[in-house]
Amino acid sequence: MKTIGVFDSGFGGLTVLRELLPLIPDARYVYLGDTARLPYGSKSRETIARYAVSSARFLAEQGAELLVIACNTATALALDDIREALPNIPVVGVVRPGAESALAAVQSKGNTSASRVLVLATAATTQSGAYTRTLQSLGLRATEKACPLLVPLVEEGWIDPSPHASVTLDVLRIYLLEALEQAPDANVLLLGCTHYPLLKPLIETTLGTLHHPMKVIDSAEATARAVAALLPAQEGAAINAAPECIFYATDSIEKFQRLGSAFLRQPLPAVHLVDLGG
Amino acid sequence: MKTIGVFDSGFGGLTVLRELLPLIPDARYVYLGDTARLPYGSKSRETIARYAVSSARFLAEQGAELLVIACNTATALALDDIREALPNIPVVGVVRPGAESALAAVQSKGNTSASRVLVLATAATTQSGAYTRTLQSLGLRATEKACPLLVPLVEEGWIDPSPHASVTLDVLRIYLLEALEQAPDANVLLLGCTHYPLLKPLIETTLGTLHHPMKVIDSAEATARAVAALLPAQEGAAINAAPECIFYATDSIEKFQRLGSAFLRQPLPAVHLVDLGG
Repeated sequence: MKTIGVFDSGFGGLTVLRELLPLIPDARYVYLGDTARLPYGSKSRETIARYAVSSARFLAEQGAELLVIACNTATALALDDIREALPNIPVVGVVRPGAESALAAVQSKGNTSASRVLVLATAATTQSGAYTRTLQSLGLRATEKACPLLVPLVEEGWIDPSPHASVTLDVLRIYLLEALEQAPDANVLLLGCTHYPLLKPLIETTLGTLHHPMKVIDSAEATARAVAALLPAQEGAAINAAPECIFYATDSIEKFQRLGSAFLRQPLPAVHLVDLGG
Repeated sequence: MKTIGVFDSGFGGLTVLRELLPLIPDARYVYLGDTARLPYGSKSRETIARYAVSSARFLAEQGAELLVIACNTATALALDDIREALPNIPVVGVVRPGAESALAAVQSKGNTSASRVLVLATAATTQSGAYTRTLQSLGLRATEKACPLLVPLVEEGWIDPSPHASVTLDVLRIYLLEALEQAPDANVLLLGCTHYPLLKPLIETTLGTLHHPMKVIDSAEATARAVAALLPAQEGAAINAAPECIFYATDSIEKFQRLGSAFLRQPLPAVHLVDLGG
């Protein structure tokens, strides 16, 4: 049974783990949320790379034979650094699978060359240009929009069905209006942050009120499929196995358990505190 | 000439430095923003103490003979740890000066026992109960309210005169309504985070629309006075000296210079990058 390491700066990567569990049940999962040093999205490339590499090394020490970087910011800014630091372990990020999902969505409409993908992400991810480069390599045009308030709003819980979700709708309207002014021809929306799937219903509502409906896709499911493609085909008998999951966080266990269950959509078992020296 | 170390998790402490410069011009200032590990306000006591102590040690190594913890979260959760780590250096936090400012505001109205101070702060600061304990020791009643979205909104620049300040007004209305439901008798509002002075006009507007006007005070000026009280009286001749300021940050210099000048209300000189091993 393979040990799969899943890494995020915080809780967002649990949306990727949620897709991995049913697809690859015959595995042992070790999840690390680097919550003492989050958020990564507002920091510099050098700092993000240092944090991401030390986190990846920790997962390798826990026996991870395959690493999933379930964090858009760490993927966009530090994937090469992680691969260099751990040359013997396959490393899967979320940017390429997300971009490939966008391509599939565009192809299903049959008009690749006339398409433009709008990517919502953190400041650090958009500044890296990683999504634009990857989408362009697939023949797609792209516009990236930094949305620094969305992660704090999700962490505050101001999403459906909170009565304060109206504030989040106002923020989404401002960000999407600014983005569509730059990219009026956008016809696919890619969520370039693992926190954003929790905003999907509010984003779709906002696109409706702006009379600009678009298919909204995230990279969680596509990333899980990319991981499965690296592994031998799953045995039929193993499908009902309950995968073992071990959770580590670098800060407050209590907060991780409380917020984490919203992302994973199931209660979290014990979370272990780990000090990465930050 | 004394060297005064000023520490914050980020830029907010510059609102305290801004008050120190005219009050104590005959000094050398070394400022550290631990921007690679911010925000502190959402993290646990243990993590905040570890970060704050390593930051304070750095300033001591730069020659600081007096330390100003210009960060409410670090003061509320780590002041004792910092004093223990650096027993030979006087350490001034922002909580007690802020509480004393609140007392002075209440006394000017002449009704101390009938007063209640409402403190707006980060989640970590409110959870510590440091403001409530300090205000109670001065004979005041207190209610603390966590406002996790205010720091991200200030850092996004959605404050006066941004057209998006209306979102910040909505957020303030939600937080203040919730707070005043718990504390309908509050008659002084204390800003328990060094980011919040930049929100003062919006907070006063919101209190007006809620028909609950209150004096809004912050701890920056009171903290500067507490520091001055520890030093020999300033020479008249030195008042026109331009204090030397050296700035360090643990992450992105560029962002520090851009945001920092809004907090200091003057352009920042060169900012030096420092690695505290995080």
